[in-house]
Amino acid sequence: MSTLTVPQPVPPVADDCEQLRKAFAVSLYLLHTASSDSLIVCRWGTNEKLIISILGHRNAVQRKLIRQTYAETYGEDLLKALDRELTNDFERLVVLWSLDPAERDAYLANEATKRWTSSNQVLMEIACTRSPQQLLMARQAYHARYKKSLEEDVAHHTAGDFHKLLVPLVSSYRYDGDEVNMNVAKAEAKILHEKISEKAYGHEDIIRILATRSKAQVNATLNHYKNEFGNDINKDLKTDPKDEFLRAPTVKCLTRPERYFEKVLRLAINKRGTDEGALTRVVALRAEVDMKFISEEYQRRNSIPLDRAIVKDTTGDYEKMLLALIGHIEA
Amino acid sequence: MSTLTVPQPVPPVADDCEQLRKAFAVSLYLLHTASSDSLIVCRWGTNEKLIISILGHRNAVQRKLIRQTYAETYGEDLLKALDRELTNDFERLVVLWSLDPAERDAYLANEATKRWTSSNQVLMEIACTRSPQQLLMARQAYHARYKKSLEEDVAHHTAGDFHKLLVPLVSSYRYDGDEVNMNVAKAEAKILHEKISEKAYGHEDIIRILATRSKAQVNATLNHYKNEFGNDINKDLKTDPKDEFLRAPTVKCLTRPERYFEKVLRLAINKRGTDEGALTRVVALRAEVDMKFISEEYQRRNSIPLDRAIVKDTTGDYEKMLLALIGHIEA
Repeated sequence: MSTLTVPQPVPPVADDCEQLRKAFAVSLYLLHTASSDSLIVCRWGTNEKLIISILGHRNAVQRKLIRQTYAETYGEDLLKALDRELTNDFERLVVLWSLDPAERDAYLANEATKRWTSSNQVLMEIACTRSPQQLLMARQAYHARYKKSLEEDVAHHTAGDFHKLLVPLVSSYRYDGDEVNMNVAKAEAKILHEKISEKAYGHEDIIRILATRSKAQVNATLNHYKNEFGNDINKDLKTDPKDEFLRAPTVKCLTRPERYFEKVLRLAINKRGTDEGALTRVVALRAEVDMKFISEEYQRRNSIPLDRAIVKDTTGDYEKMLLALIGHIEA
Repeated sequence: MSTLTVPQPVPPVADDCEQLRKAFAVSLYLLHTASSDSLIVCRWGTNEKLIISILGHRNAVQRKLIRQTYAETYGEDLLKALDRELTNDFERLVVLWSLDPAERDAYLANEATKRWTSSNQVLMEIACTRSPQQLLMARQAYHARYKKSLEEDVAHHTAGDFHKLLVPLVSSYRYDGDEVNMNVAKAEAKILHEKISEKAYGHEDIIRILATRSKAQVNATLNHYKNEFGNDINKDLKTDPKDEFLRAPTVKCLTRPERYFEKVLRLAINKRGTDEGALTRVVALRAEVDMKFISEEYQRRNSIPLDRAIVKDTTGDYEKMLLALIGHIEA
């Protein structure tokens, strides 16, 4: 469930665009000083509060319309204007939030393929927490924007165990139905248990099951695993000393994304200095999806409401925009 | 280029459906014998010639419309009627031909995942000779028909080297543009040459390049390979004693599909007893795509026109339908 709040009635798109344009306006004011005839040139800056009050309270369809209308009216991409006018974490949050979801996934995935292995987590997230149709749309947006395929960049960027897991994950187009084959679930729970017992964590059958089965089927298999072998599979996977290879997070993303994102937030906020990259990503990407669940999970797990934790760790416009997206109406 | 011939003007769809219905009509005629009052019950069979004259000369859009109109008019799927009325190779040819291309790919792929490894070639063909968009539509048709994903069945069906190659091939959604990065082409030609020289035919880089790069990029890389290292890559790959693993055919399917299909036809026709399965598949699947090129290639390579070769090897309605699809107007 979304935490986004949208005013009722929503202002006309043209008004939103006009307000945004005003928010960006850089005006030169000529002031006479009292004591002399000299002029002081003042530069009025961007009105961040106005930007938050608009973009922080419009859903994906509305933002898309705003971006289209803004481009038609002022001959400039709204994202370019945001990029120019804003800075730092606030800029990244507003820009990520303003992107169309498929474009945003393509953008983040492309960025991830250019960075170090820690960014492999972002690729796994995109591959596993989107619906099959959304992942496909991200791959189409990737073609359109980068003139390459997502999987070729991921395959080129990764090696070894990351390669073995991430390439099939980002290439998957899982069946999206609820039907479950209980015989397959039993057989594959057994295979998973065997391979994990043999410490063959990177075995092709583990990858095959996680990367190709429908989410409903993976879930049935893991339920059977727990019933039959006593442990949650994630507990067993964590005995892998090399779990930097994302197999446990993959399982979590596929079956309990809200718990996965709670943990990302927890680590980002508890980190000395805050990991703004992760905080921004989770809030911008999940606000309209399941932020309400993530936020509830966060409070249960950390005994502090997410908004309080954010207020403690962040400041300024960045803080205000985060709060707007996680549901603060007054923000 | 297609070899299909369509009459001008095309008869109205309703007429085609009526004619097909007539072709299927099983009539009981009561005849008085001259010598007595007893009755002879005669069963009039299916009119195969009429079926060929219609379905053998309609393009994919027209056939789809015929199937829709037939179902609306007679409350029965045309494919079911064909299945019931026809037999053997002729049946399979007409049914494959009448299926919508994406459905047909899904059907053939599903069949292939249930058979022995020789059918892996069919999976490779589907993955490599369709456009990225067509492969995607086949995967969507697979979801709709089998309530599973193509890649999960392929991954489950294959093992070892086949698995390593086929899963990424069927999961790929390649970039479809013509842009080529010459630096990548040079670098990857070098990688291919190194791995082949080391006889590491199943190396993940070889698979990565073949399975994820756009066809234009693969082609540029292979051109560079030939320029730089002297041999056609296929010649080098063929020194692999285990080339049953389809790497050379994959290269051919990606870059010169008409040559690949010529070879499939050549082997099917030259085989003692004819491989009707392969013959049917190539004709039904390529008649509307590149059969003209395949047929020219066939004549160049075998010094006999394809139609003459088919006439020598096949008979009856099956022969007539094959000839219709490869462009015989009189058939």
